[in-house]
Amino acid sequence: MSLKTITLKLTVSYLGTAYHGWQKQPKLPTIQAVLEEALAVVLRQTVNLTAAGRTDAGVHALGQVASFSIPFQSLVAKQVLYSINGVLPNDIRVKKIEKVAEGFHARRQAISRTYKYYILNQEFSSPFLANFSWWFPKPLDIDLMRSAVSCLVGIHDFSAFSAMGGSYDSTVREVFHVGIERQEMLSGQLICFRISSNAFLYHMVRLIVGSLVEVGLGKKPVNWLAEILQSKSNKNCGQIAPARGLILERVDY
Amino acid sequence: MSLKTITLKLTVSYLGTAYHGWQKQPKLPTIQAVLEEALAVVLRQTVNLTAAGRTDAGVHALGQVASFSIPFQSLVAKQVLYSINGVLPNDIRVKKIEKVAEGFHARRQAISRTYKYYILNQEFSSPFLANFSWWFPKPLDIDLMRSAVSCLVGIHDFSAFSAMGGSYDSTVREVFHVGIERQEMLSGQLICFRISSNAFLYHMVRLIVGSLVEVGLGKKPVNWLAEILQSKSNKNCGQIAPARGLILERVDY
Repeated sequence: MSLKTITLKLTVSYLGTAYHGWQKQPKLPTIQAVLEEALAVVLRQTVNLTAAGRTDAGVHALGQVASFSIPFQSLVAKQVLYSINGVLPNDIRVKKIEKVAEGFHARRQAISRTYKYYILNQEFSSPFLANFSWWFPKPLDIDLMRSAVSCLVGIHDFSAFSAMGGSYDSTVREVFHVGIERQEMLSGQLICFRISSNAFLYHMVRLIVGSLVEVGLGKKPVNWLAEILQSKSNKNCGQIAPARGLILERVDY
Repeated sequence: MSLKTITLKLTVSYLGTAYHGWQKQPKLPTIQAVLEEALAVVLRQTVNLTAAGRTDAGVHALGQVASFSIPFQSLVAKQVLYSINGVLPNDIRVKKIEKVAEGFHARRQAISRTYKYYILNQEFSSPFLANFSWWFPKPLDIDLMRSAVSCLVGIHDFSAFSAMGGSYDSTVREVFHVGIERQEMLSGQLICFRISSNAFLYHMVRLIVGSLVEVGLGKKPVNWLAEILQSKSNKNCGQIAPARGLILERVDY
């Protein structure tokens, strides 16, 4: 007997400040739990979401992708979209819902994830940007930082930029692109670090950023990130940058 | 007997979401009350702040200016700046403190105030921008809006764009500049309306924006704002736009 199912792909934006990350946990508010509850209300059945990236506590998303399959039913994706946004709290919004081919899996089929990390590099914090940036008052040299990160592009063993807690078959990842640029937003002076990779190790972006600011301060040489990478030991990298500055920007399939 | 005093000028940024406006009120949290309390802690004496613009409940500021005078004491403005930001909550930041000429008055001597108003013009709200924009999902024609506001520039009686509650010697104001532009921020599609004037009447900007969206929707003709203005009666203007989209951007002296 074959049961027909339909698979839906959701593109989700959230401010992670109030949540203990994506992943469901007993008695703690998480993005997955809130979304699954909202979907249960709208679809009148239990769903299990899979996300492209299991963002940590306090990490945000502009374009997280999640998928789920349910027994076949006639539904209009656009109606589900409006209904679920009517149920969700203001800090979580579903931007898009699409019917996709059966068997689509948001995590396994993603070919690229792009994260950005905002460093608020100015003397005082900003009431407008505090929730989604790392306030770093000491001046940073963006040219040094740009030179330092270029070594990350390509296929490397990134174990030096990973924290305990992940379990992997391999710690090799392919970084497609890195970029650093200054950006003014709401009168705030931001440095935006962006990185695209086929996948990321646990805390990889935040450990890279934590190391990168040491180079930007002039405390470490430009080739320091390359040295850390080659050492393959996370004892050598800088401190972890705070979760609040990290945003999952997009996932590509 | 002449008592020597010193006068200080503060440039302040705040997210007004949690406050009942600038002005002190019994038993309600206000920006002025929180700032005066913080200054009392740092300076060990009571101060009375005067602001260039008494922003309403829920209205924000990037560059509010406030001033106060205290009996002469030896102080380093930069030290006061660091100390007060250590005491203030995250949603209020003093960006600058300057010693100014005795008798400087933040409200009376301001020659221009600039407000901006953010309309989030897209299908769904944004977790990142919700606090400081008006979510307006219906498409707006920015060219029509730009044509409609040009009539505001110059010296006019703006009583048609004022709410009850203000008491004025005159309702004539000089608008120096208006501008409307699309702006993408954090993947959100914003329309930013900006207006500079020597001074503003009560609710003036929000009544202009509330009228302006009617033109942007095509419900009212491009010359509608000019008609409202000429009528000198606020019975003719559109609905008031919500406080959350309004930001006092700067004050010039």
